[in-house]
Amino acid sequence: MYIFGIDIGGTSVKIGFFKDSFELLEQWEIPTHSNSLFEEIAENIKAYISKKNISFEEIFGYGLGIPGMVKNGIATRCVNLGWENVDIRQEFNKALGYDARVYVFNDANLAALGEASYLNSKWDSVVFITLGTGVGGGIIFHQEVVEGADGLGGELGHMHIDDKYNFTCGCGKIGCLETIASATGIVRLTRYYKDKLPTRLDLNQITTKDVVDAAKANDPLASYAFDEACQALAQAMANLSVIINPDAFIIGGGVSNAGAFLLERIQKYYTNKCLEQATHTKINLAVLKNNAGIYGACAYLIKKKHEVEKNGKC
Amino acid sequence: MYIFGIDIGGTSVKIGFFKDSFELLEQWEIPTHSNSLFEEIAENIKAYISKKNISFEEIFGYGLGIPGMVKNGIATRCVNLGWENVDIRQEFNKALGYDARVYVFNDANLAALGEASYLNSKWDSVVFITLGTGVGGGIIFHQEVVEGADGLGGELGHMHIDDKYNFTCGCGKIGCLETIASATGIVRLTRYYKDKLPTRLDLNQITTKDVVDAAKANDPLASYAFDEACQALAQAMANLSVIINPDAFIIGGGVSNAGAFLLERIQKYYTNKCLEQATHTKINLAVLKNNAGIYGACAYLIKKKHEVEKNGKC
Repeated sequence: MYIFGIDIGGTSVKIGFFKDSFELLEQWEIPTHSNSLFEEIAENIKAYISKKNISFEEIFGYGLGIPGMVKNGIATRCVNLGWENVDIRQEFNKALGYDARVYVFNDANLAALGEASYLNSKWDSVVFITLGTGVGGGIIFHQEVVEGADGLGGELGHMHIDDKYNFTCGCGKIGCLETIASATGIVRLTRYYKDKLPTRLDLNQITTKDVVDAAKANDPLASYAFDEACQALAQAMANLSVIINPDAFIIGGGVSNAGAFLLERIQKYYTNKCLEQATHTKINLAVLKNNAGIYGACAYLIKKKHEVEKNGKC
Repeated sequence: MYIFGIDIGGTSVKIGFFKDSFELLEQWEIPTHSNSLFEEIAENIKAYISKKNISFEEIFGYGLGIPGMVKNGIATRCVNLGWENVDIRQEFNKALGYDARVYVFNDANLAALGEASYLNSKWDSVVFITLGTGVGGGIIFHQEVVEGADGLGGELGHMHIDDKYNFTCGCGKIGCLETIASATGIVRLTRYYKDKLPTRLDLNQITTKDVVDAAKANDPLASYAFDEACQALAQAMANLSVIINPDAFIIGGGVSNAGAFLLERIQKYYTNKCLEQATHTKINLAVLKNNAGIYGACAYLIKKKHEVEKNGKC
């Protein structure tokens, strides 16, 4: 059987065609047109399987990730695509033209499932944190996505960390993790400390990569700001270790391109801040990057397939 | 069928005898003697069922709560009773003398399950916070206890809230929720602000109840300190709302005896600190109090019974 993983972003839709063995056979992208989105995805998929001589019966199901809050297949809120209480499962089914198995998740939650399944399918609980323009996340418990009562499960960017910088978050609050440890947060922190330490950076036009590169070259200001961001992230992780106490943390998003330089700092601060029993929790960098969402969709459908097979045996 | 719920405390063991309809038929306590504990509990139960003319076959199983960290039936750490990596399930089975269904949990996790099941069995996810000498907690997700990879799931007292008071926690860290919002934390806060505001309290010999009573009577210092504790708790809850995003919070422990006076403040600060989508999350005071653990044990065994029945039908 085959599985489609579909990751809907603000500008493009990533489509992955998988075997039910978790093997990605092919992937491609189409642009996101918000007015006829589901019809375009469905037409694209129908054309693809027709070309490949595959019937609908051979497709176990479809997993969709969307950049907004999801509850039971309904996009409760998706600012980028202008959705509020849109029944994505129903819309996509209608576009496909048959009663298919369709599951819908928040994109970061699906990415969490993808990375966790790919890195170690034995892990029972995993916390995934993406450090991009914002900070997102996803929590896996008993190999299920923690969606939350209102679709806020794993919205880790809004964990409150520290008021001292007085940075206002997009959500309107002060002190959210996102204001400190995101790509934009790291730039913000660097400018915040500009009078405290010397630097060779031109602060009017710096990117996160500039700060990371300068920190790697021991620039005093860049090193200090990057360190503060790592400490904030480690504090959030230490808190998560007494809430979920996961088998592993996975760090993704653009900032994770800093690689070992980032990982070493997070590890050091996390070990220092968490309870002794949690010091050995695995901390990993994400490996699937932009493909995490489609892999997550596949992982979820494979799990559903096992459930169907198990119940079928009864 | 019948179920035994057994809540092992530092000084006494509470035993509850239930019908599998969640009805508590009888309850009693025996003293905790750490050297022959399981034998004494087993003898007590055997004498009880013999007196009642009940056979082992009529007992579906036993749920045990212990005041320490538990992973897969093993007490990884229980300072009060001097246990480290003790296989509680095995020990209790040996003491019973037959191969019984025995499940072991951390006592706060079991209390969480008890309160959640009793208040609303429809809730899928619940965060339970106990404000006692320390701050404990338990998280229920998909009606399962979040035990955590190292048994640290729901150890909410060690969520980091604020360094500003510089209070050192029993765990060795600064800024844990437990140092601020526990019964002892509230007394500590009151003393911390003693030079800031007037009070009629004798700060050398105050209890948490004194502070609460004085706050209710508008004593300036007591009101301020109690308010700060409520804000710290509300901040922790707002963080939990973007991690787990539970259907409900339940507040228990001695401090919860402050009742509506506590609940109103927590509700106000939580609504202010959480994201808009989570403002309607239910906040409840615990109702089962000291019986929460034995009810939690019963709830878990009832769930297991349903699973057995379902699999049996196949």
